[in-house]
Amino acid sequence: MNKIPAAILGATGIVGQRFIQLLQAHPWFEISVLCGSPRSVGMTYREACNWVLEGDPPDAILDQIIQPITPDLPARLVFSALPARIALEAEPKLAEAGYVVSSNASAYRQDPDVPMIIPEVNGEHIKMVEWQAERRGWKGLMVTSPNCTTTCAVMPLKPLDQAFSVSSVFATSIQAVSGAGYPGLSFLDMADNLVPYIPGEEEKLESESLLLMGHLSGKERIPGKFKVSAQANRGPIQHGHTVCLSVKFEEKPSPEAAVEVLRNYRGPEMAWDLPSAPQRSIIVRDEPDRPQPRRDRDAQNGMVATVGRVRPCPIFDLRLVSVIHNAIRGAAGGSILNAELLVAGGYLS
Amino acid sequence: MNKIPAAILGATGIVGQRFIQLLQAHPWFEISVLCGSPRSVGMTYREACNWVLEGDPPDAILDQIIQPITPDLPARLVFSALPARIALEAEPKLAEAGYVVSSNASAYRQDPDVPMIIPEVNGEHIKMVEWQAERRGWKGLMVTSPNCTTTCAVMPLKPLDQAFSVSSVFATSIQAVSGAGYPGLSFLDMADNLVPYIPGEEEKLESESLLLMGHLSGKERIPGKFKVSAQANRGPIQHGHTVCLSVKFEEKPSPEAAVEVLRNYRGPEMAWDLPSAPQRSIIVRDEPDRPQPRRDRDAQNGMVATVGRVRPCPIFDLRLVSVIHNAIRGAAGGSILNAELLVAGGYLS
Amino acid sequence: MNKIPAAILGATGIVGQRFIQLLQAHPWFEISVLCGSPRSVGMTYREACNWVLEGDPPDAILDQIIQPITPDLPARLVFSALPARIALEAEPKLAEAGYVVSSNASAYRQDPDVPMIIPEVNGEHIKMVEWQAERRGWKGLMVTSPNCTTTCAVMPLKPLDQAFSVSSVFATSIQAVSGAGYPGLSFLDMADNLVPYIPGEEEKLESESLLLMGHLSGKERIPGKFKVSAQANRGPIQHGHTVCLSVKFEEKPSPEAAVEVLRNYRGPEMAWDLPSAPQRSIIVRDEPDRPQPRRDRDAQNGMVATVGRVRPCPIFDLRLVSVIHNAIRGAAGGSILNAELLVAGGYLS
Amino acid sequence: MNKIPAAILGATGIVGQRFIQLLQAHPWFEISVLCGSPRSVGMTYREACNWVLEGDPPDAILDQIIQPITPDLPARLVFSALPARIALEAEPKLAEAGYVVSSNASAYRQDPDVPMIIPEVNGEHIKMVEWQAERRGWKGLMVTSPNCTTTCAVMPLKPLDQAFSVSSVFATSIQAVSGAGYPGLSFLDMADNLVPYIPGEEEKLESESLLLMGHLSGKERIPGKFKVSAQANRGPIQHGHTVCLSVKFEEKPSPEAAVEVLRNYRGPEMAWDLPSAPQRSIIVRDEPDRPQPRRDRDAQNGMVATVGRVRPCPIFDLRLVSVIHNAIRGAAGGSILNAELLVAGGYLS
Repeated sequence: MNKIPAAILGATGIVGQRFIQLLQAHPWFEISVLCGSPRSVGMTYREACNWVLEGDPPDAILDQIIQPITPDLPARLVFSALPARIALEAEPKLAEAGYVVSSNASAYRQDPDVPMIIPEVNGEHIKMVEWQAERRGWKGLMVTSPNCTTTCAVMPLKPLDQAFSVSSVFATSIQAVSGAGYPGLSFLDMADNLVPYIPGEEEKLESESLLLMGHLSGKERIPGKFKVSAQANRGPIQHGHTVCLSVKFEEKPSPEAAVEVLRNYRGPEMAWDLPSAPQRSIIVRDEPDRPQPRRDRDAQNGMVATVGRVRPCPIFDLRLVSVIHNAIRGAAGGSILNAELLVAGGYLS
Repeated sequence: MNKIPAAILGATGIVGQRFIQLLQAHPWFEISVLCGSPRSVGMTYREACNWVLEGDPPDAILDQIIQPITPDLPARLVFSALPARIALEAEPKLAEAGYVVSSNASAYRQDPDVPMIIPEVNGEHIKMVEWQAERRGWKGLMVTSPNCTTTCAVMPLKPLDQAFSVSSVFATSIQAVSGAGYPGLSFLDMADNLVPYIPGEEEKLESESLLLMGHLSGKERIPGKFKVSAQANRGPIQHGHTVCLSVKFEEKPSPEAAVEVLRNYRGPEMAWDLPSAPQRSIIVRDEPDRPQPRRDRDAQNGMVATVGRVRPCPIFDLRLVSVIHNAIRGAAGGSILNAELLVAGGYLS
Repeated sequence: MNKIPAAILGATGIVGQRFIQLLQAHPWFEISVLCGSPRSVGMTYREACNWVLEGDPPDAILDQIIQPITPDLPARLVFSALPARIALEAEPKLAEAGYVVSSNASAYRQDPDVPMIIPEVNGEHIKMVEWQAERRGWKGLMVTSPNCTTTCAVMPLKPLDQAFSVSSVFATSIQAVSGAGYPGLSFLDMADNLVPYIPGEEEKLESESLLLMGHLSGKERIPGKFKVSAQANRGPIQHGHTVCLSVKFEEKPSPEAAVEVLRNYRGPEMAWDLPSAPQRSIIVRDEPDRPQPRRDRDAQNGMVATVGRVRPCPIFDLRLVSVIHNAIRGAAGGSILNAELLVAGGYLS
Repeated sequence: MNKIPAAILGATGIVGQRFIQLLQAHPWFEISVLCGSPRSVGMTYREACNWVLEGDPPDAILDQIIQPITPDLPARLVFSALPARIALEAEPKLAEAGYVVSSNASAYRQDPDVPMIIPEVNGEHIKMVEWQAERRGWKGLMVTSPNCTTTCAVMPLKPLDQAFSVSSVFATSIQAVSGAGYPGLSFLDMADNLVPYIPGEEEKLESESLLLMGHLSGKERIPGKFKVSAQANRGPIQHGHTVCLSVKFEEKPSPEAAVEVLRNYRGPEMAWDLPSAPQRSIIVRDEPDRPQPRRDRDAQNGMVATVGRVRPCPIFDLRLVSVIHNAIRGAAGGSILNAELLVAGGYLS
């Protein structure tokens, strides 16, 4: 098939760079236009971008001119790495104008007409775009991917919920610096330090988890009924978020039963064969000192959640630790996977 | 008064170095002998020690010869920074021989005849040395200071327990590398990384907390009745442990009430005027992004717990974050304060 | 005597913060006014400043209102931590208006009428303020302190030059991140990395060294005649610059002779008893692996150059390594010492 | 062709791990046996090895039993990552017994009968194995790869020498922690620090450079005639060595001429098509702030030297900066390339 032309909004930022990196050799999508802020518009990508990822930016895009966000982008698909307040206005306009928008921004994640999706967790929520079309009257559509830390927690929680019914979750994160964008945090603030606060992060983890683990009923998304208490910390780590979880279930599992569920979990069948999907969405490590962000963030191209230390909890039922690559599975990679799901579901061609 | 001559066991290790640093100009104690492992015995301190703390070791001790641990040390007081398995044998022999042993080792912390003390938390447990003498028949005595992470959690939990009765605690730590001693952890394991496992640490936090927040009844120490679930992580930070706490109480306090209790807490009066005691054992920071290990570990000479982010918890009642200097308040400084308490209580002169 | 009232220009920046920290308990000077950029003017220091140094800002200044830079500051002495382009205009106006300006900015360092001083190196250059007054017609005066890396190199080079006549110097620096101000460099640029380029730094090192090691002749400052080739690198270190030197002399010294010269050096007598002066301006370490920025930057309150690895060079004559605290001796502390020199020389009272 | 069976000596160490990683899918060689120290012999690789590289060790080797080094290894080729003092005895025995030994150890690098080779620099030195056979009477042969920092300096120096005749070189390195092996250096020694000393490193850089850039005459290797003065520093960087060079030539080149020579350099034709050889051995970056170890160490699979900041020197002729991946091009990758050169030269089949 011909590749689907894709725009990247916020192309010079750190998530935009990941989109470029991950779409370089994508089998279904190809980058057709790079959009940036007024400050960058008219510059070449080479001039406008301070590339901070490993390796160099692909030659093919270095001389592309950064474009403004307009409703006549030469694209069918739009990947958005916009800041929330810009996304708030720009994304619906593009959906209205007929584009398929796969956003990593937080602006519409909680909107009752916009699916927020991790394909292996709640791929079936993709159906929300059907009532989205009706209610919004958009010619295009919009899907979102969740917050990176939420993704890190929910990828293992979902299979456990399916098997044993989650009722309460304590989640304490230690998050990498790249989650704050570039230039983001100062070396002088983060080196040899830990900052026990990330604005808005705990609220996202506490609310987005319920939506992701909710179900559709009629034309409504019913959130999960469990409770989450989150504490978010920023640590001196470049990439890779860690979440320490204590979980209470309706039906208490043994650690062995939980590990078996995690290892065997495959998620909705519609997500099995997507090109960016990992073989399994979860890797369980047996070593007592894993997962570790530096050693596990790149497993399966950064698209997997690595889980370990599955053990009993003296207060709740189980404790475990999850690590993901915040900028791949937790951001650009997640949005690309969502666009692939749209193709597989027949919503994008 | 004449200063009390003190031996340091494990003098070349990182906690031993802290003892030397903190005792340099102590008003009541003076270093009379440095003891080390067979490998170091007979060498000068200069030869035997790789000094890793800020500044240089004091000139006065550089040419002292490292001595073996024997029952005829030229000391009245013994500070022990021994590894647990060495302490197990050496410490009771010294107590039996008449020395006053203030240990930072974990070997006897849970012994029903050995007080484990943070003066501002449970200074009154010092009375355990009275039945210790009866039951053990030692001419000397032994007290211990708790694990560093436990100290970080318990210093703010105690006043809250006194006011509102703690019933359950989730504690997730991010601990500094110096807690693992020197040379301790490899740069290649810790740089740009987080290790979600520290052998034995969670167990210590879960059990020592109960003893510290217990009470004496007759000749028995009755542990606290609450439950603790701990997750311990090692992060790429030199000094300063952080503990994120979610706490359930018998009587739910507002965050404001909790802050007031923390700010006004003074602990047992017997600990008020000890030379190494901070003015208050707890500092509460109002800024949303504090406490931070690098910015708060050295407050009040590293002897205080800095607390922040006191806020409601969606599952339990309160969430808060505590930071201490693991090697000062959490180790050598704690043991020195315990020895001062012994002096103040008339058990050492 | 009454303390001399001092203004701090650029008070909220990282060097401004050091000025505040170092002047807190100064025997001769007291902070009378804090000046900041238009963005901060009118705010309290508490509101305007993100304090990044160890410890907290002194209570006494937290509620002071940031003032604009005007010629009627309530001060006699002005410490400038301004960016060069702001200093260019502001500093001469203040000197003209009668203030004694001790600047850390680079704007006037190379001006033939403005002394650039390290008291122990070229304290006698203070006399330049006499012809400065004549030529400029200023009612006040201006002195500058050199670049931090230059200071690190010149402090040991000066005594060696005096004894053996330096003819050529290769200098390769590894500089701390705090030298770039705050927020300065991104964690994502510096972590696990080295950047072999600092704009303008090599040029400063190559030219300022000659002026500092020059001499006065009539009413002229004659630069030193040696050559310097500099390579400047930024490394993932918070504070403390390192310079690796290879030096050729007119008269080749043995390493032992060089060490003796360094150890015995006292500099101009006028600098001996200044309140912020270290006992000796140079410490020579014998250990093969010193000086190290983290272990040596704070020696003697950060006001000393620590030197080590003094050894033969296969091409030139000697190799050595020097470390200083870039933000104390290399910035605020250097400017304070210069002001003290002005007092001692009778130019400020 | 059938793959050549290769043994890895020192297989559990950090360089041994790189050999395993790089040989996983090698077109000419396959791992046939893993050898380790007496402590590891008899254990599986899984048990004996603490894998510290990115990713996991290949499944195929996890259950191999670590073997002792004996003269009947099931291999034709032997890669040695032995410590120098073990290599001293073991390597000649294996060469004598008929094995082709490609060593990364320093033991025989300076031996007049043992070629020390970087194929693109001095591939023709491979002929030394012909007189090695005569003089030593070995049935096999031995080649060595040089020190990692030497490699970093010599890769760009060689083309410049060929074009303009190098006469003197100042080299200051900032070396990554992985160069010290695993566990190697303590986090507490290296974090936020720089250590201006690496035992033996400066001597290696000063002597090995001459041999690598020497030529063969009759049956003798004539070292280069230039001089090198080296200063070696260890910095808080995981992988990637940087060397800052100032170079004097017989014939002074412009920076532009030097860059052209570096860009066009291809080295001896015999090295052009080796499977592990990069397209060009040198990449020249034009950006003022490159090369940087984190951003450039992995270029072309870690097998290239990245050079930048080619500019005039006020004392010598040119200054430049070179970065290589110390553990790939500077160690295991270099030795593998040497073995490939032996195949191409007909010395190994």
